[in-house]
Amino acid sequence: MTGALRIGILGGGQLGRMLLQSAANYHVETFVLESGSNPPASSVSHHFVAGDINDYETVYNFGKQVDVLTIEIEHVNLEALFKLEGEGLKIYPRPSALQIIKDKGLQKEFYKVNHIPTSGFHLIQRKHELQSHINFLPVAQKLRSGGYDGKGVEILREVEDFHKAFDAPSVIERLVSIQKEISVIVARNAQGDTAVYPAVEMVFDPRYNLVDFLVSPAELTDEQNIAAHKIAIDVLNALNSPGIFAVEMFLNTEGEILVNETAPRTHNSGHQSIEGNYCSQYDMQMRVLQGFPLGDTSPVKPSLMLNLIGEPNFTGPVVYQGLNEVLALKDVYVHLYGKHETKPGRKMGHVTILGEDKEELLRKAEFIKLHLKVVS
Amino acid sequence: MTGALRIGILGGGQLGRMLLQSAANYHVETFVLESGSNPPASSVSHHFVAGDINDYETVYNFGKQVDVLTIEIEHVNLEALFKLEGEGLKIYPRPSALQIIKDKGLQKEFYKVNHIPTSGFHLIQRKHELQSHINFLPVAQKLRSGGYDGKGVEILREVEDFHKAFDAPSVIERLVSIQKEISVIVARNAQGDTAVYPAVEMVFDPRYNLVDFLVSPAELTDEQNIAAHKIAIDVLNALNSPGIFAVEMFLNTEGEILVNETAPRTHNSGHQSIEGNYCSQYDMQMRVLQGFPLGDTSPVKPSLMLNLIGEPNFTGPVVYQGLNEVLALKDVYVHLYGKHETKPGRKMGHVTILGEDKEELLRKAEFIKLHLKVVS
Repeated sequence: MTGALRIGILGGGQLGRMLLQSAANYHVETFVLESGSNPPASSVSHHFVAGDINDYETVYNFGKQVDVLTIEIEHVNLEALFKLEGEGLKIYPRPSALQIIKDKGLQKEFYKVNHIPTSGFHLIQRKHELQSHINFLPVAQKLRSGGYDGKGVEILREVEDFHKAFDAPSVIERLVSIQKEISVIVARNAQGDTAVYPAVEMVFDPRYNLVDFLVSPAELTDEQNIAAHKIAIDVLNALNSPGIFAVEMFLNTEGEILVNETAPRTHNSGHQSIEGNYCSQYDMQMRVLQGFPLGDTSPVKPSLMLNLIGEPNFTGPVVYQGLNEVLALKDVYVHLYGKHETKPGRKMGHVTILGEDKEELLRKAEFIKLHLKVVS
Repeated sequence: MTGALRIGILGGGQLGRMLLQSAANYHVETFVLESGSNPPASSVSHHFVAGDINDYETVYNFGKQVDVLTIEIEHVNLEALFKLEGEGLKIYPRPSALQIIKDKGLQKEFYKVNHIPTSGFHLIQRKHELQSHINFLPVAQKLRSGGYDGKGVEILREVEDFHKAFDAPSVIERLVSIQKEISVIVARNAQGDTAVYPAVEMVFDPRYNLVDFLVSPAELTDEQNIAAHKIAIDVLNALNSPGIFAVEMFLNTEGEILVNETAPRTHNSGHQSIEGNYCSQYDMQMRVLQGFPLGDTSPVKPSLMLNLIGEPNFTGPVVYQGLNEVLALKDVYVHLYGKHETKPGRKMGHVTILGEDKEELLRKAEFIKLHLKVVS
């Protein structure tokens, strides 16, 4: 396509798929790199390249085909990205920001150095070092790298829990006494403009440690909103990179806001922005990639986002039960990710609900949880 | 894709492309049939089949691959569709509805038989027959078949205009003294539920020198709104087909509403529904195709839709000028159709604007018209 901006996406999952739905609004030519056949993003891109996003040569060669490179997952080959950036390729987010975020140890050090409030922590190399931090319990032990979607995290409340600790480089974080979990999505373009979405509030499903549903905007005091907004901007400024980022935070029982972690990309906690905000996180990413002014983050209406997770005991070709009942509700939007196979706990889609107030949202969400099932 | 509904689309233009952006929210496998390489819809479908949508064998064989068939242009091979329907294939809209609409003569007869208000008309076979309708002037002469996007229409005000008349089967329609042109998009699913969008208004404002733009909702009296709504439902009931239809109407200077013509598909006058209404016309079509309950047609905010047309004197690989300025405006949404080449008058994309009132919409539209240019 003559003259169209060539955009490369590392990763072919649902975040890439939803980005590509927005990409079809622009004069761009899209390239997806992902291993495996038929990932969610492959059917909506111009070009799908099967290959390992962690392999230096593969990522480097992929990057040489495009004008701007982005990610939809942070577990990618960094060396290739640094090399490509050195050769002049635009990469949003920048490899330097990815490097900080990919390593949960570096990420915590980064918050500390930049005076961004976060829970206390120590870095350890081996499990036996836990013995010298017994007074620091209870902690969340997180693998410094490789964790994803709740994997790579263990809660250690007392010495008796040490048997389940990881024996690998990890960060141990003082467990926060959580009042609420919130997330703020922020974007920055190459010109340095920033856009901040209203904070959203997350409710977790303890069975899978995945976001169960989230409500936008979060119920916060004005003070808390201002604080969350400021922290998100501080993280963005310290990262010093164009891109879109999700800053996940805890509001603790003392009323303080602490950063939990940052994702250097569109995020599950921003899915509701597709219908719930005037500019979706995906359209925002498209604006960043093309160097355009940023969009309007204000909410259309209060919204609630519910993940659709593979039911326990079902593995195989996916079947969605209850879509008919759910789509009969007013202002309910189903997003299925085009994954062929379900398995217990797999993210297969999400549903966004718009409503006048939280009460209406929760009522519809209850109905949907009761009726919509991902089985095989 | 095991278990996914296989949806076939006849035609690969921008209407197909926008339908496919919505299709990626559902558990479906998509097939596009269109001649030529790289039409707008090809890069966002699972399967693209190059072939002539007017060829019996091609359409028939394409239809045998899918579970449900739809169109994004009405100029398709009807015989193949009747054959496929006879063999049990779901085709929305039904071939019987397409047959009526494809032939502007049959379409006018259909309105007359069903007591749907429309301007007076006569059918003629050859140009010389105009002589016996001199008292019926002024008229719009429309070719019974093959017309599209304003092509195949001649205005004959007096006998002196007859030299430009078509010498082919055509309908001559009494020229309406137009107060407003409006359009109502209606949908029906196989269960017989209907959904009606608020009427939109085609605005011709010489101040802004716009080819055309459209404002939603139309400025109509309650009575006019009720009448337009009722007429659209009457057309839908008489067509007796699932699908999505655009009923274009005139409000004449006497305050009567007359049907101009009906499109058996999503329509240019519904593009603004993507951001301007809670359920877009494309999501609505996806609901119809899957047999789901219909969506919410109410407006999010007042909206204005502006077509992006190739500038005169530019032919070749397309360049969009002024996107940066336009995307700096609040709540402006650009949709570029992925056409590689521009030529004078070619529809290359559209822009939707949301705003608090018509005044704000017109102000933004004027700015966009001034800054955004489709050149080469």
